[in-house]
Amino acid sequence: MTGKKPSAQASIEAMYRVFTVPEAPDSTLSRIDQNISRNLAGFLQEHIVAVERDLSDVEKNFSDSAIPEKPVFVSEQTQFLLDKLVADSVHTASPAFIGHMTSALPYFMLPLSKIMIALNQNLVKIETSKAFTPLERQVLGMIHRLVYQQDGAFYRKWMHDPSHALGAVCSGGTVANLTALWVARNRAFPAEGSFRGLHQEGLFRALKYYGYEGAAILVSDRGHYSLRKAADVLGLGRDALVPVPTDDENRIQIDALRDKCLELQRQKIKVMAICGVAGTTETGNVDNLDAMADIAREFRAHFHVDAAWGGPTLFSRTHQHLLRGIEQADSVTFDAHKQLYVPMGVGLVVFKTPGLASAVEHHAQYIIRKGSKDLGSTTLEGSRPGMSMLIHSGLRIIGREGYEILIDEGINKARTFAEMITEDADFELVTKPELNILTYRYCPAVVQQALAVANKRQAERINTSLNRITKYLQKTQRERGKAFVSRTRLEPARYTHFPCIVFRVVLANPLTTPDILMDILDEQKELARESGIAEEMAIVKELAETVLKEKETSEG
Amino acid sequence: MTGKKPSAQASIEAMYRVFTVPEAPDSTLSRIDQNISRNLAGFLQEHIVAVERDLSDVEKNFSDSAIPEKPVFVSEQTQFLLDKLVADSVHTASPAFIGHMTSALPYFMLPLSKIMIALNQNLVKIETSKAFTPLERQVLGMIHRLVYQQDGAFYRKWMHDPSHALGAVCSGGTVANLTALWVARNRAFPAEGSFRGLHQEGLFRALKYYGYEGAAILVSDRGHYSLRKAADVLGLGRDALVPVPTDDENRIQIDALRDKCLELQRQKIKVMAICGVAGTTETGNVDNLDAMADIAREFRAHFHVDAAWGGPTLFSRTHQHLLRGIEQADSVTFDAHKQLYVPMGVGLVVFKTPGLASAVEHHAQYIIRKGSKDLGSTTLEGSRPGMSMLIHSGLRIIGREGYEILIDEGINKARTFAEMITEDADFELVTKPELNILTYRYCPAVVQQALAVANKRQAERINTSLNRITKYLQKTQRERGKAFVSRTRLEPARYTHFPCIVFRVVLANPLTTPDILMDILDEQKELARESGIAEEMAIVKELAETVLKEKETSEG
Repeated sequence: MTGKKPSAQASIEAMYRVFTVPEAPDSTLSRIDQNISRNLAGFLQEHIVAVERDLSDVEKNFSDSAIPEKPVFVSEQTQFLLDKLVADSVHTASPAFIGHMTSALPYFMLPLSKIMIALNQNLVKIETSKAFTPLERQVLGMIHRLVYQQDGAFYRKWMHDPSHALGAVCSGGTVANLTALWVARNRAFPAEGSFRGLHQEGLFRALKYYGYEGAAILVSDRGHYSLRKAADVLGLGRDALVPVPTDDENRIQIDALRDKCLELQRQKIKVMAICGVAGTTETGNVDNLDAMADIAREFRAHFHVDAAWGGPTLFSRTHQHLLRGIEQADSVTFDAHKQLYVPMGVGLVVFKTPGLASAVEHHAQYIIRKGSKDLGSTTLEGSRPGMSMLIHSGLRIIGREGYEILIDEGINKARTFAEMITEDADFELVTKPELNILTYRYCPAVVQQALAVANKRQAERINTSLNRITKYLQKTQRERGKAFVSRTRLEPARYTHFPCIVFRVVLANPLTTPDILMDILDEQKELARESGIAEEMAIVKELAETVLKEKETSEG
Repeated sequence: MTGKKPSAQASIEAMYRVFTVPEAPDSTLSRIDQNISRNLAGFLQEHIVAVERDLSDVEKNFSDSAIPEKPVFVSEQTQFLLDKLVADSVHTASPAFIGHMTSALPYFMLPLSKIMIALNQNLVKIETSKAFTPLERQVLGMIHRLVYQQDGAFYRKWMHDPSHALGAVCSGGTVANLTALWVARNRAFPAEGSFRGLHQEGLFRALKYYGYEGAAILVSDRGHYSLRKAADVLGLGRDALVPVPTDDENRIQIDALRDKCLELQRQKIKVMAICGVAGTTETGNVDNLDAMADIAREFRAHFHVDAAWGGPTLFSRTHQHLLRGIEQADSVTFDAHKQLYVPMGVGLVVFKTPGLASAVEHHAQYIIRKGSKDLGSTTLEGSRPGMSMLIHSGLRIIGREGYEILIDEGINKARTFAEMITEDADFELVTKPELNILTYRYCPAVVQQALAVANKRQAERINTSLNRITKYLQKTQRERGKAFVSRTRLEPARYTHFPCIVFRVVLANPLTTPDILMDILDEQKELARESGIAEEMAIVKELAETVLKEKETSEG
């Protein structure tokens, strides 16, 4: 492409070249392409600037709202992307970045992704995807079998059946959860007598016909925010997402769940769905799915399990028992770009019963016609890329055993890190790892001792200060760019449910070592001694000592 | 990876290698990677089998529902993908495949995609996307400006404003339309007095509070099926998608639209949204957006324009007038994987007013906190890939002028093809191209003449036969693999709205030449003479001759 104004014909030819002439082997873009293939870690290390730049500075590079009139050279755009985008992106693959659910990618995913993109298939229909449709149906079958363990005959019958789908592949866990609850909602108010079903007549008439005042989705108060979003999208309203208290281990309280269902029933609110969580986003805990399944049956509610994070735990013979009961779920969400180690963004939902997806079946004249095997008839999305090819490749190249190792190693590493935190007098482990997620905070021994005996008012003062410190440490560590933990807010029972800000750690990157974890703690300790926060820290310690002295006096 | 059972430590090491050791330069996968970079067209030509294999045969390659216990070699999986997946995929980039909305990709998109995948950013929040968030905000600004043409001050104020978003990037047009209608629905029933808004209390209470019996979305009967799906998802029910008749040019009848609005008003049904179509999926026509905007204002309805296909027509100084009135829309859907020539799947919706997206704003404790610039707070999806980088690159490398050429050439080519069809005695042009889409069918001159004078019963008989012929020709041509047109069903006014199956052609691939178009017609003529359909053809012609003779007699 040229910056000069060419004649019309020359412009047209230039445009054709864009589609037909590959980048020259020595072009900037080709060199990067090869560089990434040969040495991805090096490329990321070299090009991503470690120290965080101020966002307002970064925004200056993306401030022009006008689409350029004249084309710019590929090499110019490439250099721009390298200097201004890649440089200021996040090193999600770094083994010291343990705050994200996005981690390193297996090497083969890169060239395979290129094949996928080059083919540019669209999974909405067979006509634009051909073999990709049977492949995606197989992937759905494989995950279905991992969850539900039906026999071979079941999959021979249903996997490629044109009028059924064992699930839906989608852009991620949010759409997977939404799809599951869409199915649940439509099935809760089916066609009957003169009523043609919620899917046809809508929620207003459905509730009137069935004599309800509302419909609710129940989930623990640690449920993912996508469920509240789904309640909004589906027209139920955010109030319809009813949070149920959790126990000290961040698992839903089964008695409270049952009480809540009874209460809703008395209020003439339909218990439409009960959602179990297999791997809470913030603490990595798993609900008692078996007990939840019983309650769902009792109230004839759809039982959905959000296993976006924890689903792949099923690969591990050692830890799969944690998800016991998942096979009773009507639907299960899996995220592939999390612990299946597939690039962003692909997730899926599987349905226990092959007929379930029909509750959201749509057809059109030119595609997804009735009787076709087009997967687009039961997905929320329309056009979709061939990401299933990458899930398929992961399942085959890594295999059940490989995923087992990744899961087991992650959980082991989380336990190791938990021990390191517990043994270090400067830190407090806030939630123990059940899977590979834990939370902790900087909280010197003396402060921990004080908190154990402080009255409510004192504890709140200390925790408020600690919150500021945690926030500062997390932010500063991120800005320095060597390591990254994320942060969230929990309400630990031991602090009378006072909101506490904590570091959140996700140990899914196989390249993270104990040494790296030790370095992260060391850096946090170092930061705590720095001028920005040392004064606050001194105040907290003084406060703690006062509390301990008072206690001593009152006991003395 | 090895197929043998290794010791635990060896397994762990093998697993680490998968993440750290790139494919060897001479590995099958690396060779394909390089091959695609050097010669994509050749790779596709060589590896995609032209002749269509029976789907049940293809399914045999994807029939195992068990996840392999042991890992398979990368090279083995690569070979499998080449032989069983790539071979039986669809050559969407072929210039003779003019039935899809998916076409060829500019070459630079491939290496850029690899950078995007290697970076593995997640746009839900700044913490996992950093510079990608300002970049995506810029892309939203650029498309917003293309549509709404606000001044520089507007974009300086809003583009990077933390509590606003000018739109939402998503996986495609379906989610874009859904997002727009989600916003429309929530804004139609806002918080007021004791009512906390539909988003909070749900549709049931919203309708009760505001005293409505329902809420409706109006669109022409050529509207995309995703709108009906959205009506279902949003809890309105499919009935809430009210189709309005179109004129002979497949454009919504403005009087009928107004009448329908008045009728709904009388029925106490809230006119929640009116959707204009800028490029109908089947025929590529554009509604009279200006007139629709007036009606939307009259009924205080949200005015949405689905420009998934036709949006980029705004790049063309010659044709942008077709979309006049789009700047009055409250929201506009654009698909990037269609006429922005970005890989599958990315689309977006832009909102006229920066405050609109707040109707669907969600927050959580650990991400998308209030006041953050995280784009995830107003998207339907959660985790999302950095596809905006590819839109950004397209807009810069192709530029306004480049996209103009692509649009103009597509429309010119469609006109050329329409002429070729009209001039050929064997074909009937069913819908003329307004943009770059047209429909036609195989219908010899004598049959066309007969249809012009036939009575309703006769016409139906002829059209029923022609439908079978069109279906056969389309299917057979696709199976032979040299060329592809799609098919759909229209109800042309000139055939008293009898459902007619037609070939549908989309001319978006810049590599499609008039010679290729001629070959497609020739092959169809050839197929029509083959034994499979020649008899049916003979019957139609006989029927036509009888009709013409009768007419002659009655007039004689």
